[in-house]
Amino acid sequence: MDWITVYAPATIGNIGPGFDVLGLAVQHIGDTVEARRIETGVVLSSVETLRTTDELSTDADKNTAGIAAREVLSMLGEPGGIELQLKKGIPCGSGLGSSAASAAAGAFAANALYGNELSGADLVLAATRADAVVSGGYFADNTAPSILGGATVTRSGDPLDATKIGTVSALVIVLVTPQLVVLTRTARECLPRQVPMESFVANMANACLITAAFAKDDYALFSRSLSDVVVQPHRSKLITGFDRVSRGALDAGADGVAISGSGPTLFAATDSARTALAIETAMVDAFAAEGVASTSVITEIDLTGTRQM
Amino acid sequence: MDWITVYAPATIGNIGPGFDVLGLAVQHIGDTVEARRIETGVVLSSVETLRTTDELSTDADKNTAGIAAREVLSMLGEPGGIELQLKKGIPCGSGLGSSAASAAAGAFAANALYGNELSGADLVLAATRADAVVSGGYFADNTAPSILGGATVTRSGDPLDATKIGTVSALVIVLVTPQLVVLTRTARECLPRQVPMESFVANMANACLITAAFAKDDYALFSRSLSDVVVQPHRSKLITGFDRVSRGALDAGADGVAISGSGPTLFAATDSARTALAIETAMVDAFAAEGVASTSVITEIDLTGTRQM
Repeated sequence: MDWITVYAPATIGNIGPGFDVLGLAVQHIGDTVEARRIETGVVLSSVETLRTTDELSTDADKNTAGIAAREVLSMLGEPGGIELQLKKGIPCGSGLGSSAASAAAGAFAANALYGNELSGADLVLAATRADAVVSGGYFADNTAPSILGGATVTRSGDPLDATKIGTVSALVIVLVTPQLVVLTRTARECLPRQVPMESFVANMANACLITAAFAKDDYALFSRSLSDVVVQPHRSKLITGFDRVSRGALDAGADGVAISGSGPTLFAATDSARTALAIETAMVDAFAAEGVASTSVITEIDLTGTRQM
Repeated sequence: MDWITVYAPATIGNIGPGFDVLGLAVQHIGDTVEARRIETGVVLSSVETLRTTDELSTDADKNTAGIAAREVLSMLGEPGGIELQLKKGIPCGSGLGSSAASAAAGAFAANALYGNELSGADLVLAATRADAVVSGGYFADNTAPSILGGATVTRSGDPLDATKIGTVSALVIVLVTPQLVVLTRTARECLPRQVPMESFVANMANACLITAAFAKDDYALFSRSLSDVVVQPHRSKLITGFDRVSRGALDAGADGVAISGSGPTLFAATDSARTALAIETAMVDAFAAEGVASTSVITEIDLTGTRQM
């Protein structure tokens, strides 16, 4: 049996105010799996990480690519198996949906090898279950955009609901990932259990306006709705240099800055490629001034989602 | 100077989960003003209410129609005045945006009489300021849909942001208004100051999915996203018979039931005119079984908003 190649994009969870609800797929960063049918079982024969410090298990039951592939075979009632080779393009623990993209690629590959019978919604379900095994939380705000592409709204209940909501075509995204470790678990534990009523309304309004901005392709509406008063005040404390870097981005012309997922990656929004370059330099320099090395990329929305190459 | 006639539709604030953010204009119920230019000042020469128990001031500084008209004249820098006659088609204190519709009609009439120079967004601002004087809260979730029509998302900050988000064309709405008094002030005071994090996420997800449902004209998505775990558990206690009436609506085939605005009006959703009749009967009967008289109407979305007749 021949090998197939599947690519799944990185994602920006939350998109600012939409904690655990909104997510956005981006270009230029993603995970790739090579996959082929085998007689039975799920085998993860190799894992190549992006950074030497990233350590990932090649136990197919502990890596989201393997878990998601097994979930899809189970949904298909398929006795056959799959061999996977995972090539990470997303740094682990970066807030860019690393485990979700591996899950998306694994789920998509298993479905592609066995008749493509499952829908996008089925694949989101399989990948979200897989991601939950590793992350400890059942949320589709990374798996859904990685699989479906573009921006998505998800209700991570039972049944899971994930819907794609259009695009903001003028959006240019600057992503800066500092070399800091923020565990998703820590990023969750630092959050309060209660939200003030006014903050609930403020974030919900912004999350609905971002949804509307994608539906209407309205960059101005998008960029003036990125404020998050619920989660960011707590998670920003885990990111050395957050205030300096955000201020640097805004001073360089960004129309908004927010934490990507649980961080530490930050994203900035602009509608100008030239301004994006200035923002990128300002953010990297600001982290450096705090003694933190970082990597960066200027990117756009990935409208396709997970695909066979 | 000739009289003009302006009509402003009633509205469903919140649309279930979207507390203070989402709103929807409906057909068949609304307020009407007759208006004409006068030399100076704002005069409310008559107020005709729908129910004999509804008492409204004819002091133009205490009625939202007059306050909004004055606000528009001020925004226009217009020294001329306006005489208004208000005919209420919306019962006061019903949760159907009564004061907001009067404000919408007053604002629209003043703009129409003096050159139509203001935008819809300007009129939303004027009407929201007027509504705030009377209700004590600065929120556009009723004024925006009444003026713009259809469903709207609003961020009631400074600057105010209000955007129209499409339609759910299959939606048939059953509105049932029990003869109970629920003051907006009481309906606000009964709410907790803090929201559990899980409830915040659940309501935000549903509010974003409702926004997406309007953008995509998706009735199924709309009707399975009406759940409100933040506000309804508290406000429903103010509505005698709430549990029985909701259960009756669902048993009769409704796909969702929620409180309209701060209540006591309840709305039920269906995509069938025949089922709507059964739902209406079930809800009115259930209120009657609790000893509460009610009025009801079967309606649809009003896409036009405030207009000159």
